[in-house]
Amino acid sequence: MVVTDLVKRLLIGRKLASAQLGETLLPKRIALPVFASDALSSVAYAPDEILLTLSLAGMAALTFSWEIALAVGVVMAIVVMSYRQTVHAYPSGGGDYEVATVNLGPTAGLTVASALLVDYVLTVAVSVSSGIQNAKAMIPFLTGHEGIAAAVVILALMALNLRGVRESGALFAIPTYGFMLAVLGMTGWGLFRIFVLGEPLQAPTADLEVVAAPGYENFSGVLVVVLLARAFSSGCAALTGVEAISNGVPSFKEPKSRNAATTLGLLGTVSILMLAGIVALANLTGLKLIDESSGSSFLRDGDPADIAHETAMGQLARTVFDHFQPGFFVVIIATMVILFLAANTAFNGFPVLGSILARDGYLPRALHTRGDRLAYSNGIIALAVAAIGLVLAFNASVTSLIQLYVVGVFVSFTVSQLGMMRHWSRHLRTEKNPARRARMQRSRVINAIGLTGTGVVLIIVLASKFIYGAYLAVAAMALVFWLMRAIKRHYERVAREVAVSQTDVRMLPSRVRAVIFVTDVNKPTMRAVNFARASRANSIEAVTVAADDAEAARIVAEWEAQDVGVPIKLIASPYREVVEPFLTYVRGLRSDNPREVVCVYIPEYIVGHWWEQVLHNQTGLILKARLNFMQGVMTTSVPYQLASSRLAIERAERGSPAAWRHSGSGQVRMGEALDGHRRK
Amino acid sequence: MVVTDLVKRLLIGRKLASAQLGETLLPKRIALPVFASDALSSVAYAPDEILLTLSLAGMAALTFSWEIALAVGVVMAIVVMSYRQTVHAYPSGGGDYEVATVNLGPTAGLTVASALLVDYVLTVAVSVSSGIQNAKAMIPFLTGHEGIAAAVVILALMALNLRGVRESGALFAIPTYGFMLAVLGMTGWGLFRIFVLGEPLQAPTADLEVVAAPGYENFSGVLVVVLLARAFSSGCAALTGVEAISNGVPSFKEPKSRNAATTLGLLGTVSILMLAGIVALANLTGLKLIDESSGSSFLRDGDPADIAHETAMGQLARTVFDHFQPGFFVVIIATMVILFLAANTAFNGFPVLGSILARDGYLPRALHTRGDRLAYSNGIIALAVAAIGLVLAFNASVTSLIQLYVVGVFVSFTVSQLGMMRHWSRHLRTEKNPARRARMQRSRVINAIGLTGTGVVLIIVLASKFIYGAYLAVAAMALVFWLMRAIKRHYERVAREVAVSQTDVRMLPSRVRAVIFVTDVNKPTMRAVNFARASRANSIEAVTVAADDAEAARIVAEWEAQDVGVPIKLIASPYREVVEPFLTYVRGLRSDNPREVVCVYIPEYIVGHWWEQVLHNQTGLILKARLNFMQGVMTTSVPYQLASSRLAIERAERGSPAAWRHSGSGQVRMGEALDGHRRK
Repeated sequence: MVVTDLVKRLLIGRKLASAQLGETLLPKRIALPVFASDALSSVAYAPDEILLTLSLAGMAALTFSWEIALAVGVVMAIVVMSYRQTVHAYPSGGGDYEVATVNLGPTAGLTVASALLVDYVLTVAVSVSSGIQNAKAMIPFLTGHEGIAAAVVILALMALNLRGVRESGALFAIPTYGFMLAVLGMTGWGLFRIFVLGEPLQAPTADLEVVAAPGYENFSGVLVVVLLARAFSSGCAALTGVEAISNGVPSFKEPKSRNAATTLGLLGTVSILMLAGIVALANLTGLKLIDESSGSSFLRDGDPADIAHETAMGQLARTVFDHFQPGFFVVIIATMVILFLAANTAFNGFPVLGSILARDGYLPRALHTRGDRLAYSNGIIALAVAAIGLVLAFNASVTSLIQLYVVGVFVSFTVSQLGMMRHWSRHLRTEKNPARRARMQRSRVINAIGLTGTGVVLIIVLASKFIYGAYLAVAAMALVFWLMRAIKRHYERVAREVAVSQTDVRMLPSRVRAVIFVTDVNKPTMRAVNFARASRANSIEAVTVAADDAEAARIVAEWEAQDVGVPIKLIASPYREVVEPFLTYVRGLRSDNPREVVCVYIPEYIVGHWWEQVLHNQTGLILKARLNFMQGVMTTSVPYQLASSRLAIERAERGSPAAWRHSGSGQVRMGEALDGHRRK
Repeated sequence: MVVTDLVKRLLIGRKLASAQLGETLLPKRIALPVFASDALSSVAYAPDEILLTLSLAGMAALTFSWEIALAVGVVMAIVVMSYRQTVHAYPSGGGDYEVATVNLGPTAGLTVASALLVDYVLTVAVSVSSGIQNAKAMIPFLTGHEGIAAAVVILALMALNLRGVRESGALFAIPTYGFMLAVLGMTGWGLFRIFVLGEPLQAPTADLEVVAAPGYENFSGVLVVVLLARAFSSGCAALTGVEAISNGVPSFKEPKSRNAATTLGLLGTVSILMLAGIVALANLTGLKLIDESSGSSFLRDGDPADIAHETAMGQLARTVFDHFQPGFFVVIIATMVILFLAANTAFNGFPVLGSILARDGYLPRALHTRGDRLAYSNGIIALAVAAIGLVLAFNASVTSLIQLYVVGVFVSFTVSQLGMMRHWSRHLRTEKNPARRARMQRSRVINAIGLTGTGVVLIIVLASKFIYGAYLAVAAMALVFWLMRAIKRHYERVAREVAVSQTDVRMLPSRVRAVIFVTDVNKPTMRAVNFARASRANSIEAVTVAADDAEAARIVAEWEAQDVGVPIKLIASPYREVVEPFLTYVRGLRSDNPREVVCVYIPEYIVGHWWEQVLHNQTGLILKARLNFMQGVMTTSVPYQLASSRLAIERAERGSPAAWRHSGSGQVRMGEALDGHRRK
């Protein structure tokens, strides 16, 4: 299972110790499916959205589908060309966030990061929703339950990723190539039947007439422009995911940049081919789609036709393979699988980006260094919750969700292209070699075209979709941006506050006074006493709060009977409280001896089940939280491991996947111990 | 505001230092409203439920309402008589839980406790629902939104109780006496108008005919018995809350038991009077109620009559005060207020019982001693959440909820009466004085009658309501019982495990090795270093994990530049983790020196807002949780208070109500310091 592990590592990009990196380099034929599933899968819904949007204005507008597809293809070509430059300039696989941060500064980088985070959520929501819409061609039962079905799929993806989907990678190549073959095969066979065999293929919706939605009946003037702009914007969903290869350059075999650029070119070609093929077939077979929620409808011979909504892919597969049922199923299943796979890549990419942002202080720092498992789990859960919210809110309607999509991608494209232009300009300032200067100038021209192209698309997308949902995406990005900047500022403020000065190093307390918090006389308490005594504080005492007089008397009696060797003090508590009287006592110690430090020893029961936690240590936890607010007081937890905790450890060691254990106790190389002090 | 504070303390029963108890004793005229609001309020819905249930079988059955009311009155008299014995036998105010535990053992006590906990939830749900149903007579808008309205009221009660409703007590007397006056006044004036003035008072539903529900058309044979049993069971809801006085004996003025017994008799008399009055008026005015959900319906002159459902109280007030609108409003408002007040008493009683159960180890022990605020908050929130779940699930339908109610009360009554019989038998075994023996024998006879009465009612209630909802209450009680027993067993198992032996006292570790967990060179780290140095461990070292090589080099360089005085070690982390390599290092220290103890110092950032917590200390928390599972390792938190934490302390001190501050730092008497060691 070399490919398996390797692919997971690539996508997670974390478990790799530098020394191991050499083993995992990908040939182009594997890199394409690994990085391209997201980009390729979008041709499953982009043509639908073009046709749906045009059909708002009835039959007349549908003839424009060719022109729209062509325009999307042109943009795709421009973006692919532009990213080929990025691949050469950043062989380290910086990604749009790095390109923007390095060349345009942290605000631009944060803008890109916000756009990407929001887009990851939408990738999951749109891909899974489209998968469900396609599945309806096979499983009619799903109709009416799309939202729930999509939520279940997302939950399943989440669960797989939380458990560590180490097998999923091995299967990357099969579904991706399978989808390419299925779609191109269907297109080829369809065109062959029409043009060579001369069969008059008719889509299930070929004999229907489309009635324009209210407000779109008069298809002329401004309305033409507006509608074509909307159709084009939705079609641009086909471009999402193209940037993935530029993040993955380090994983390619040498020559890395060249191989990555070639793969990118391949991806662009295949995408454009598939898009063109589907739109061509749709036109030739008279396929029609309507957006019922906007009010357009089907007529059959002048009467309203009540027909189950089916995706373009579903209708085409039905039509082309009308004589060969298995072909239909292969196309639908391949489409569904690649869409879920595309969603799965977001589950890998989102926590990686989160980890990079955490490193830079834009997200809780623990997400960067806390170790694989927990940090990634948080990211995976956050992504799943947000995506489930979306598919439920929009009932897994791709047409509704697509209005929010694309904005983020093009924000990221545009800023990244601007960054690349700055990159070349900066390098041109110092580069003297004329040949290299010429190449740089050529690259800069290409990125300028890319910037213009993606910038124009971004404006068209924003203008044509804003009121239909894009405003939600923009608001979400703004919120994420604001939140991450607030976190960064918080960290910066705290860093200034805690910056060390020479006096800090020399502020040694004069004495340490140990206070043992006692609630009963038992093994945990005795262990706390023994540890406290071994620590050799300047003074040591045990303290118990008499919330219940009889109980307190019993404790003191047992204490004396055990001859513990440490004096015990009793604090009266007329209101039967424990925490406040104890805090008051410690506060008194502190104000009597301001130069001393108090160390409170708290015995803790370590249990094996989460629910046992509720039954133990609660008072100690509250006490610790309150003591933390006092100057000059430290708290020492002395754990006592109950039998159930030992079982829990065994359980954890049995249950955890080998990968986590691997990084755990066993195989970590202990570093050279730098004795900073003695080396001086 | 003497009464105010006093009443709250009585109901909460916790803030009282023993010395203060004398000040707060209640005369009978105050004790009645304080303890009787729950019992009295139930006459607001008991008659409705009798009439509703009977009307299932149409007009014929309605004539039985008198007999049912009489039977309920008899049971009420029996229960009151029985509890007068309890009041004399347990002047300490044991309550049913204590009576059952002392006389019948812990299982019986736990049974009673489970029943009471479930019944507290139902008291809130039923009382608030009935309040909302009555409010509909004034505010027709509530129709159709009963569930939500009830949930809002419960939330409001929860909020009041969480903030500490210190004023609510002052108003106990007014609504309780107001309700008594309003109902008795209405009854008196109604009877006066009918019998003295000879006016033919007609309820709004007098001219309607009731159509029996499907399955009940043939009112004869077994059906008569079944229906009368159900009506009687529902009517027994009038008895809920009667036991409250027996819990409150210590709060009465001397002679406590006699005064409590008198008050109990008074309560019983008033309850029976009000019940009788309402049923009499209902009969005289031809009032009818139907249970639409079961399928019975109204006919007017043979045609279906669509009439807004109104409670008996609403209809009677409308009828009796048809010439005097304010009278109508007074009755409705008084009813509503006493019902909400009854719900409020459950908010006081539930956490008190919870605290007693926690003392006995049936609930998390922290609930007993953690100090007023948090423990009570948990109880209040748990009660509110459960009650809100019920009112939403049953849309605040008293008729549905009443099917679950009453079971718990009669379980508690029956077990308690059995306990009282055992109490007398036990005392009779040793008592020689003939006069006292005679009194005891008389009491035992009364409790035997009580046991028979309540036991029979319990069987009737279970048999007649089980399938209509009582099974839910039984299941809930069984669940609560099982849960509490499991908690108790857990505590017992742990207590056996941690019982101290002489060897525990003498197991002193040979040396303490201090390890400071370093993630950066700043003030918090320096404080940890200084505290660790002051603690004089046998050896001391700082350790940082090199998850990022550049970062690690920077830390070591700064460490050396600061001349900290403690050596720093660097642990390699090829997988860029922090926690696991550190744990491995500590594990190594432990296995190399098993007789030593390791003390890990973890610098902590203390922040002022909960959301800042997410940004700090996460790695330290994980580390601590993992270290806790290691034998011979203690962790010391060295808090560093950021500026925001000081603001938080000021905020907390400004915001908290005086009562909590009172019990806090300022006024706790410091107890005599018993130096257990030196006294030897």
